[in-house]
Amino acid sequence: MAIEQQTTTSTGPSGREHDDRARRLAELDVRTVIHPHSVIGAPEEPLILERGDGAMVWDVTGKAYIDGTCGLWQCPVGHGRPELAEAAAEQIAKLEFYSSFGDYSNEPSIRLAERLLELAPPTMRRVFFTNGGSEGNETAIKLARLAHHHAGRPERSVILARTGGYHGMGGGSLAATGIDRLRAGYGPLMPGIEFLAKPHAVRGADVTDALIAEIEERIERIGADRIAAFVGEPVLGVGGMVPPPPDYWPRVQEILRRHGILLILDEVVTAFGRIGHWFGCERYDVEPDIIVTAKGLSSGYIPMGAVLVGERVLDLAGGAAFLHGFTYNGHPVGAAVALANIDILEREGLLARADRLGRRLLDALKPLERLDHVLEVRGVGMMLGVELDRGPDTAAAAAGVQARARADGVIVRASGNTIVLSPPLVIDEQQLDALTRVLTEHVATA
Amino acid sequence: MAIEQQTTTSTGPSGREHDDRARRLAELDVRTVIHPHSVIGAPEEPLILERGDGAMVWDVTGKAYIDGTCGLWQCPVGHGRPELAEAAAEQIAKLEFYSSFGDYSNEPSIRLAERLLELAPPTMRRVFFTNGGSEGNETAIKLARLAHHHAGRPERSVILARTGGYHGMGGGSLAATGIDRLRAGYGPLMPGIEFLAKPHAVRGADVTDALIAEIEERIERIGADRIAAFVGEPVLGVGGMVPPPPDYWPRVQEILRRHGILLILDEVVTAFGRIGHWFGCERYDVEPDIIVTAKGLSSGYIPMGAVLVGERVLDLAGGAAFLHGFTYNGHPVGAAVALANIDILEREGLLARADRLGRRLLDALKPLERLDHVLEVRGVGMMLGVELDRGPDTAAAAAGVQARARADGVIVRASGNTIVLSPPLVIDEQQLDALTRVLTEHVATA
Repeated sequence: MAIEQQTTTSTGPSGREHDDRARRLAELDVRTVIHPHSVIGAPEEPLILERGDGAMVWDVTGKAYIDGTCGLWQCPVGHGRPELAEAAAEQIAKLEFYSSFGDYSNEPSIRLAERLLELAPPTMRRVFFTNGGSEGNETAIKLARLAHHHAGRPERSVILARTGGYHGMGGGSLAATGIDRLRAGYGPLMPGIEFLAKPHAVRGADVTDALIAEIEERIERIGADRIAAFVGEPVLGVGGMVPPPPDYWPRVQEILRRHGILLILDEVVTAFGRIGHWFGCERYDVEPDIIVTAKGLSSGYIPMGAVLVGERVLDLAGGAAFLHGFTYNGHPVGAAVALANIDILEREGLLARADRLGRRLLDALKPLERLDHVLEVRGVGMMLGVELDRGPDTAAAAAGVQARARADGVIVRASGNTIVLSPPLVIDEQQLDALTRVLTEHVATA
Repeated sequence: MAIEQQTTTSTGPSGREHDDRARRLAELDVRTVIHPHSVIGAPEEPLILERGDGAMVWDVTGKAYIDGTCGLWQCPVGHGRPELAEAAAEQIAKLEFYSSFGDYSNEPSIRLAERLLELAPPTMRRVFFTNGGSEGNETAIKLARLAHHHAGRPERSVILARTGGYHGMGGGSLAATGIDRLRAGYGPLMPGIEFLAKPHAVRGADVTDALIAEIEERIERIGADRIAAFVGEPVLGVGGMVPPPPDYWPRVQEILRRHGILLILDEVVTAFGRIGHWFGCERYDVEPDIIVTAKGLSSGYIPMGAVLVGERVLDLAGGAAFLHGFTYNGHPVGAAVALANIDILEREGLLARADRLGRRLLDALKPLERLDHVLEVRGVGMMLGVELDRGPDTAAAAAGVQARARADGVIVRASGNTIVLSPPLVIDEQQLDALTRVLTEHVATA
């Protein structure tokens, strides 16, 4: 069941020219590029995308796809927004970039910091800009350690993280990532990370007591006076789109506060509307000490991230020289685009839309749980997962669903055993229903 | 001696409006932003830049500055290039971004990979895109370790690095950075890094034999069969703009090849014309296995980096799944801007210009070596350093030079004991001579 092809017919080149160019580009890609998450020396035939509009993307042959993943869940406002192109071009024409190290600054990044603090929970006080999520988590881990170090407790350096958690691919952010296949072959990794169990209540099972007991026990064993921070995603993303049990975060926070352990929330996926709020912590009634964001901040039009820093961190770290920073931090073009992107999210009511359409999508997919080989259909807002169970063949089955859905013009993503969905928040009901139909068909036959 | 103020007079707001806005922005910055390399809770009054053109930048009060550092040495083509704004806007209008993980691709990143391999040394075979230098070095370290791991030598994980080397601020790139003040407070860092001496021949002293002997001895002690790679900048950057002795790199390369150790050249600063070549390795007659680039690749207009991978790495790693990547890798907007940027570098002959103007600047500053408190004036191409010696007060003296030069409308940067210079390659002779006059005056009285 393929979706209707919405190819352009007005100004495009002839079919043959299209095909020739597509073939040449594919050959060139195979010969020259190492893609992230590919096999070195054995490149796949690429899918070369070249146009986007809302929740649709088109490849170089003119084939259309409903974008069910938002690339890597980065574009809540959808593809092809002319006002974001204008915001970028206008800023480049004025000042394309200057470092913001030390006392250098620029207006868009100042305005963006102000805007973020207006939107963020009231305990958030300051903003440190980055270029993406990995850099954000590297920053958060360094800042948490530095804060305790500066407060006279240099032995407080351990970071508590979770199995199934994903925080990035740099030396620190990978060390805190609890997905074994992503760690193999790169060691020795940064030490001082302790992994807790994956907070996953399959089909609503009551697991919070056990998770909380484990945290208490682990802190007791390590010693609270050796622990700097706890890092976690409000909803596990790469780990399979796993919402936490409803009482999990408030109970975690209570323990951490009692022991003087900072809470870093990795909101690279959850912030900016993805689960119906500006920040996911609002949905789970938790007040983190550091919030790491990226992706939805600029909808990925320009790489941009922001780390929000709360008052407890400033109390510990006040007066410390933060000798840390990446060249493009506070990039004025990224900041100008982020400001325009936040305006769109607000003006078009996309946070509420995420909540409404997310429920619709979850309701439509939930019946798949009746299939023996579907372990769970879950989600919150526009973060959804369909977890398969075909024993040792599950990852291959999930990859098969991804491939067949794409052939039918629907992009979804197999992340381990789970088909993950995170469409642009602007997707319309017809597109969402077409996505549902295609996915249902291929999961049924997975 | 202040430079002539080149303020705009035609369309700007009145002086009072200017000052009000400047003051409001400064207050907002101080209240909301944590700048990289600042003191937490004790923000400085910011210098808010808002316009750039060639080698000039202007702040929000209309004051003009000759940009002697290129921000963080990122813009060889200078500020305010309309064609780079157009390249960005055109690409955003088509497809702003889609992940390039797995088999997803886009035309600008494919074309850029092709272009880079045309420009690079012939042993370079493939390109992995990043968003900046830190990510590039994280990538290079992970790839070198993975290559040996995949080739059946997982114990080959040690990375040789150098005191004074700077490779970034992420968990792996910081671990390989040999500057103590940048490491303090963040540990434990990633293990498996071994530091060698800083390759610095003060005023041409003969030190290569000693440096080479140290490398041989260290490899002997660690065991070559435990070492994955050697990482170094062709010319030390943050470490003080230190060119190596002329015979250093060929001799280092000979040792590494003999022991099967990969050579990672961190060309984040040196590539794309900064020292008169597309890649710094050409100047030093060395053939690395991995080249890390960023900055000059896109002139910083959009964050972008590229890691070039050579044939020895592919031989080792062929068939390995490279489960690594940052969201914005292969960003089509960054790639489109990088292609246009490379066109400018080529069309305007900026590589040769770097060589010519760099010699002029070095010749003009060299007489400062006659001063007792100037340890050395050195440089290659448009990377220059003036190293001061005021005993324990040297860093403060260097910071003083930076501050007084800025008051006179010239931006230079104090990096530890050294005033570092890396102007845009488009700087003109008059601007260069004005910079020289201002700097000479303030170094003389440092």
